[in-house]
Amino acid sequence: MSEQSKTNPCQARNARDIDQWDSDTDVAVVGFGGAGGCAAIEAADEGAKVTIFELASEGGGSTAMSSAEIYMGGNGGTRVQRACGFEDSTEAMFTYMMMSAGPQADEAKIRNYCEHSVEHFNWLVDHLGVPFKDSFHKERGIMCLTDDGLLYTGSEKAYPFSEHAKPAPRGHNLYVEGDNGGPMFMKIVTENVEKREQITINYETRVLCLVVDDDNAVVGLVIRQDQKEYTVRVHKGVILCAGGFVMNEDMLAKYAPKLLSGNNAIGNPGDTGTGIMMGMSVGAAAINMHEGFISIPYYPPATITSGILVNDKGQRFINEDVYHSRLGQAVLNEPGDRFYFILTVEQYGDYEKMNYMGAGIAGTGETPEELEGELGLRKGTLQNSIAIYNEDVANGDDTQFHKAAEWLQPLAPPLVALDVTPGRGVFVPMFTLGGLDTLPTGEVVNPQRDVITGLYAAGRTACGIVRRADGYSSGMSVGDATFSGRLAGRQAAAN
Amino acid sequence: MSEQSKTNPCQARNARDIDQWDSDTDVAVVGFGGAGGCAAIEAADEGAKVTIFELASEGGGSTAMSSAEIYMGGNGGTRVQRACGFEDSTEAMFTYMMMSAGPQADEAKIRNYCEHSVEHFNWLVDHLGVPFKDSFHKERGIMCLTDDGLLYTGSEKAYPFSEHAKPAPRGHNLYVEGDNGGPMFMKIVTENVEKREQITINYETRVLCLVVDDDNAVVGLVIRQDQKEYTVRVHKGVILCAGGFVMNEDMLAKYAPKLLSGNNAIGNPGDTGTGIMMGMSVGAAAINMHEGFISIPYYPPATITSGILVNDKGQRFINEDVYHSRLGQAVLNEPGDRFYFILTVEQYGDYEKMNYMGAGIAGTGETPEELEGELGLRKGTLQNSIAIYNEDVANGDDTQFHKAAEWLQPLAPPLVALDVTPGRGVFVPMFTLGGLDTLPTGEVVNPQRDVITGLYAAGRTACGIVRRADGYSSGMSVGDATFSGRLAGRQAAAN
Repeated sequence: MSEQSKTNPCQARNARDIDQWDSDTDVAVVGFGGAGGCAAIEAADEGAKVTIFELASEGGGSTAMSSAEIYMGGNGGTRVQRACGFEDSTEAMFTYMMMSAGPQADEAKIRNYCEHSVEHFNWLVDHLGVPFKDSFHKERGIMCLTDDGLLYTGSEKAYPFSEHAKPAPRGHNLYVEGDNGGPMFMKIVTENVEKREQITINYETRVLCLVVDDDNAVVGLVIRQDQKEYTVRVHKGVILCAGGFVMNEDMLAKYAPKLLSGNNAIGNPGDTGTGIMMGMSVGAAAINMHEGFISIPYYPPATITSGILVNDKGQRFINEDVYHSRLGQAVLNEPGDRFYFILTVEQYGDYEKMNYMGAGIAGTGETPEELEGELGLRKGTLQNSIAIYNEDVANGDDTQFHKAAEWLQPLAPPLVALDVTPGRGVFVPMFTLGGLDTLPTGEVVNPQRDVITGLYAAGRTACGIVRRADGYSSGMSVGDATFSGRLAGRQAAAN
Repeated sequence: MSEQSKTNPCQARNARDIDQWDSDTDVAVVGFGGAGGCAAIEAADEGAKVTIFELASEGGGSTAMSSAEIYMGGNGGTRVQRACGFEDSTEAMFTYMMMSAGPQADEAKIRNYCEHSVEHFNWLVDHLGVPFKDSFHKERGIMCLTDDGLLYTGSEKAYPFSEHAKPAPRGHNLYVEGDNGGPMFMKIVTENVEKREQITINYETRVLCLVVDDDNAVVGLVIRQDQKEYTVRVHKGVILCAGGFVMNEDMLAKYAPKLLSGNNAIGNPGDTGTGIMMGMSVGAAAINMHEGFISIPYYPPATITSGILVNDKGQRFINEDVYHSRLGQAVLNEPGDRFYFILTVEQYGDYEKMNYMGAGIAGTGETPEELEGELGLRKGTLQNSIAIYNEDVANGDDTQFHKAAEWLQPLAPPLVALDVTPGRGVFVPMFTLGGLDTLPTGEVVNPQRDVITGLYAAGRTACGIVRRADGYSSGMSVGDATFSGRLAGRQAAAN
């Protein structure tokens, strides 16, 4: 690493060294994804003149590439939740999200998110025009391929979450067929941005660095367009919405080496960490940098949930009904060379047609003993795990790992084993969950939590409500991006 | 957290705001522990005028509180290794240390450490006068309570390390009885510092912050003595040797929440992260901040190694002959509510007399089945683990977890279980392993690895060769602190 370029493209410059300002704006938004779009809309609606700078030739960011599920609930329920018969309490949502974020939870941020989640839903629907159908999608899936508006997208119904927080489905899916939520959502956001006269969009523009005054307050930007550098004086605030750093291998190696176990970086090509580095160059704290979403997306078909996951000692180690990144994280934490899903023929079912994770068959057996031998597991290990599991299934209680009763089926031979070992063909998507530390308002802070005047961050450039793969739920990222973008936009405009 | 004080005691000041310099020095050393002492000695020996600033009323730091084992080897072996009949290769040491540091290893630093390790031993012995006895300590222990000079202090002989790197004992213990290596080592270092006329020591002095010029080069310090602030102009470099941040609960919560599972912070009261924060305030990268040493020190007595460690599903999950922090880390990674060491009466042996970890008896049984029931484990789980283990022991091969043959003994009833669950009385020491990113020379770098002119770090203020609890070996911290201190001192003086 020490041989790397000595040039630092993100290092802030001092305003004293700027000869002239080429343009000016009240609020500068760096990056036009879900966070940047919502930040710009709110700042404009508060009366600020806003300029968006986007590296690509169009907006969208990683939000447009996602399914754009949005995690919302609490307060008795969103319109969709209530229409589908789910009452959701703010406390249940708060408890679930606090457990999800683990010991590194930002309680103030999560509290604020939960308390304003229904309001956020209403803003998306009423103010932007985002459509959600009042229908519940029952099947367990990585995403919703129908136009249903609501589904379970996390571990809400699974142990240990279900023991502490009343489950409710909170994944809101846009009213569109197929995996088309992201493009649709960003189309709506873009239309909302474009119709606001106070907002100017600069595409194909790279923000090179921040400009600070002698008090380290952010007062401008240096940008590059058509190979030329320009300076932008910013009166109220710069909002960094430039994504995470999953596309920057050096940063992954330095900050989040565990993500290198993944094989599929989820995000847009601009997720190279420049927003985070620009913040760090003015003394901002980057936190939770080692954490990321990393997953083995083992469903669909949902029937796999009824199988058991074992390691190379033939041991189960997690309830198989959790969200896919909680299972993926558990696999990565678990020592061992091989991991198998043990399934009945019925549970294997439509796997070949629906196979999403890319795992191959590692063995089959007319008896547990035969499968154990075929997998090269020590005699007596897998057999014992299956025997115990089957006894527990017969009693309707998974005493060992607490998989919910709805998924308990006897493992009746013949059996099949899928090899879900990372590095052996299985799909392991990942993205980063670390970023600049911010107050709930979006104001960026230094390690002592002093605000850096004039600097804001939102979306994956900030470290938001989502902190760990083992507590992730689909929709938390777009939920966090859009909500934190709005707050930052509002705060910056109010300056 | 957002309610915290808005004053930032570590934020750097600009030289333009300094009216006058109260004193000056070539090299300023912040903190007088093992790293700071060795940095000062080397810088002075290179001809620099050196000033040490130490918060406490005497030197010592965390090194004086430690056993001061020093991890050294390679190059055919140190004098002690060779005298004890151990030939050690640089490659074996390098391979072991790279495995120890895991995916976040700094290869350049580890390579440099291994290549110069025997030279470092000679410097300590010949230049400082640190005594090591040419004798090998055979017993497995957390520390060496005899005056023997050499012992195994890590997982060198354990799987998987032993499969990849030829084991050699590399823990060098000072020639002193009892756990008195740390005080003795720092007494020797202090004498060496005191006899050098170019070195001035300021005790009871708090370094408040760095002073930078307009190019962000570090050119001085602001210190506080007797309630008054003074400025110090530094011509060649500031070396931050102010320890880690295990005594700062806010920083632990923000950066290393997993360490909050520990109950015994190892370090001196000054390990509050101020050195790291001073560096961050001038744009230095802090890396590996989430990692720390965390351990369940389950030996002595060494006989416990021959028992098996199981979780609340009655499953083994690690070879029990690894270094204690590798086992401790595995316990923390493992889901589950309870962890037990299952022992024969012979293995339990002298536990009550030697009990170091504070675990209580959770159950006993005339048979595995009885113990299983007494521990409330599901029928058939612990029994099966013991049956498989005993079969493997009879065959002399721990097929499941690869504990070395020397520790394999049948678990013959009656059996006893020790409760080693963190949070239930067991001693769980911890300290931080994250810090400022530095080049092997000790120069502090920003996130792009550009050198911050005039700034150096060593010891736990820097992120050194040691990166993870699961690869730790005793002596790596004092080894790293003293070696990195020397390099930083030499580089700063050469400026």
